[in-house]
Amino acid sequence: MDHIDELASALARLPGIGPRQGKRFVYYLLAAPAIERTKLATLIASLGKDVRQCPDCLRFHNGSTVPICNYCADTKRDDTLLMIVEKDQDLAAVERAGTYKGRYFVLGGVLTLSGKGAIREKELMNIVEKRLKNGLREIVLALSATSEGEHTVDRVRELLAPYRDQAKTSQLGRGLATGSELEYSDAETLRAALTNRKET
Amino acid sequence: MDHIDELASALARLPGIGPRQGKRFVYYLLAAPAIERTKLATLIASLGKDVRQCPDCLRFHNGSTVPICNYCADTKRDDTLLMIVEKDQDLAAVERAGTYKGRYFVLGGVLTLSGKGAIREKELMNIVEKRLKNGLREIVLALSATSEGEHTVDRVRELLAPYRDQAKTSQLGRGLATGSELEYSDAETLRAALTNRKET
Amino acid sequence: MDHIDELASALARLPGIGPRQGKRFVYYLLAAPAIERTKLATLIASLGKDVRQCPDCLRFHNGSTVPICNYCADTKRDDTLLMIVEKDQDLAAVERAGTYKGRYFVLGGVLTLSGKGAIREKELMNIVEKRLKNGLREIVLALSATSEGEHTVDRVRELLAPYRDQAKTSQLGRGLATGSELEYSDAETLRAALTNRKET
Amino acid sequence: MDHIDELASALARLPGIGPRQGKRFVYYLLAAPAIERTKLATLIASLGKDVRQCPDCLRFHNGSTVPICNYCADTKRDDTLLMIVEKDQDLAAVERAGTYKGRYFVLGGVLTLSGKGAIREKELMNIVEKRLKNGLREIVLALSATSEGEHTVDRVRELLAPYRDQAKTSQLGRGLATGSELEYSDAETLRAALTNRKET
Repeated sequence: MDHIDELASALARLPGIGPRQGKRFVYYLLAAPAIERTKLATLIASLGKDVRQCPDCLRFHNGSTVPICNYCADTKRDDTLLMIVEKDQDLAAVERAGTYKGRYFVLGGVLTLSGKGAIREKELMNIVEKRLKNGLREIVLALSATSEGEHTVDRVRELLAPYRDQAKTSQLGRGLATGSELEYSDAETLRAALTNRKET
Repeated sequence: MDHIDELASALARLPGIGPRQGKRFVYYLLAAPAIERTKLATLIASLGKDVRQCPDCLRFHNGSTVPICNYCADTKRDDTLLMIVEKDQDLAAVERAGTYKGRYFVLGGVLTLSGKGAIREKELMNIVEKRLKNGLREIVLALSATSEGEHTVDRVRELLAPYRDQAKTSQLGRGLATGSELEYSDAETLRAALTNRKET
Repeated sequence: MDHIDELASALARLPGIGPRQGKRFVYYLLAAPAIERTKLATLIASLGKDVRQCPDCLRFHNGSTVPICNYCADTKRDDTLLMIVEKDQDLAAVERAGTYKGRYFVLGGVLTLSGKGAIREKELMNIVEKRLKNGLREIVLALSATSEGEHTVDRVRELLAPYRDQAKTSQLGRGLATGSELEYSDAETLRAALTNRKET
Repeated sequence: MDHIDELASALARLPGIGPRQGKRFVYYLLAAPAIERTKLATLIASLGKDVRQCPDCLRFHNGSTVPICNYCADTKRDDTLLMIVEKDQDLAAVERAGTYKGRYFVLGGVLTLSGKGAIREKELMNIVEKRLKNGLREIVLALSATSEGEHTVDRVRELLAPYRDQAKTSQLGRGLATGSELEYSDAETLRAALTNRKET
């Protein structure tokens, strides 16, 4: 396989990119100034060196100096709460929302109904046991409201069963998401929206 | 305008239908057996006669005999609750969800930010005053979680201000709707999902 | 089944309309002025009376008085050409293009690869034999450039085989359609575009 | 800006990629084995070295050894034809079609109606003059059938005006592209399809 095709198929491994768009990228890079290619290559090559995975929450962070990430290091965050999310981008979304001040753990994936996918089970147990020593009281299962998310929640709750009397588990509330129209909302969402209705 | 074009544009008035699809419908009807056309025409013509608008909730129902609809007539439903929805289909969705057992009122529309649209204000006041005499305690504002829905809620709450000490108002809970992924959820939805989190 | 549901499912028979949108239409009609419903019902009911199917080309036309349509009646059109299209809307599109001045025949459908669908075979033979007496020299098979269109063309050519030495058959030219990009064009289209290239 | 964000925005420069997907790519690369990152980085860094731009047609090719590409070097190709395409991918599409055996020239872009965009004008003149010495007789303008493509054709024809009596210019034929339905085809496409109709 020649260089163009080899790079095209390497780029086609990126999430959501097919062979044709991979090829596109190659021609874009060929037309781009050499300096842009060099910079991109350097950033990719040095990624593993500059970016570390936090030993506690397992998220990736720009921790060239310290291994532990700023959320896990921050002594002002609430040790009684541990939120379990699927991936780094979900954690970022929760931080953007700006109300959660507890700790995090990134599962690193979801389990599909067909039994595919893998999550960080051992690391989950370890962090829970560690956090329990620091006063952990509630584990927030913040998975997506999808069938895969719920399937993963079931597995995580099995894993957390032994700790049930030390820390309770909770799940994100269901209801109308921004933009939801009643007419198109499913029964489960509407029931939750009704139960969670707020006095105004 | 000839018959084909006239019918096409009449059909193009149906919600979500453009001129081209209107034309499509005409050709479909032309190819369909005369009996199908006759049946459709009869059903449309007699719609106003067979279907009544309930004088209380203002929804349309097959009330050839009685004017009042079965939800408003049902003495087993909870008189302390009145849910305000935008349109008949929303009411149907709530019924499908199957948990709400109170009364309803159909606003008949939403107010757009540009000040367009109309809602049944007078009828709303009337039904609220009537329901208050029957022990109404909570008015559930069940509008869609859209900017128009929220804009309409503001107006409805103005209208209901005089009754605030007799009946409280509430809004459907926000949170993750079925299918929502954390990564793509807006801050408001995530904050609500966190506040409404449920112990499991 | 009650009136609302009955009308909803009658409307759901229109091409491209599902049960939910059918319901939508019903509520739109309920909210619409009675006069609009009456007018729509009348137009549908009288459709078969005001609109006739031309005995020659089999297209539907507003021929309350004469049975034969204006294209077939027009003595200025070219009797040496007969264009065979799938449906009335295709004929309308060709007329909009404005260059074809020959005669038409509407097949009334296409044949699917799975052998479904029906076309007006007997009527096709009849019109071809009739047109041959009036100097027909070329039959233009103007079917869509889809697998179903090509499958239908095969069948039509079988039917026309007996007349091959009296009238030739032709097919619409392939090439770049307006908006086509080379990169995304299939080999067949590009080969035709190259063969049909025009000096400029 | 930290490493993750820097790489995310570098990747967001790829055609059709937004900031969010750029971030996605970064997290994918972080989770991927270091070897995959290294390979990708190497392929990008060495792209300019292994891939050359042909001095004649200006397409990019894997010419680590020879500068001139295989199509321009191939003595069996037809020197009387020169096809002008917008970009390398278009040339590849024409080759896949497999009927064209002449020479190529890659314009490197299109001109937008708003006057944006640049094409290789000087290089175009040079190659045309060079090809004329080798018996060039026809220049095929193989631009996309879009407004930008046609706008670019106008400019190219201006540039080629001086050579008009030595070589004629042609354009790819218009007609029904694979998949086109008559009902949705524009007048220009239908007129071309009719003019280019083929006896069968």
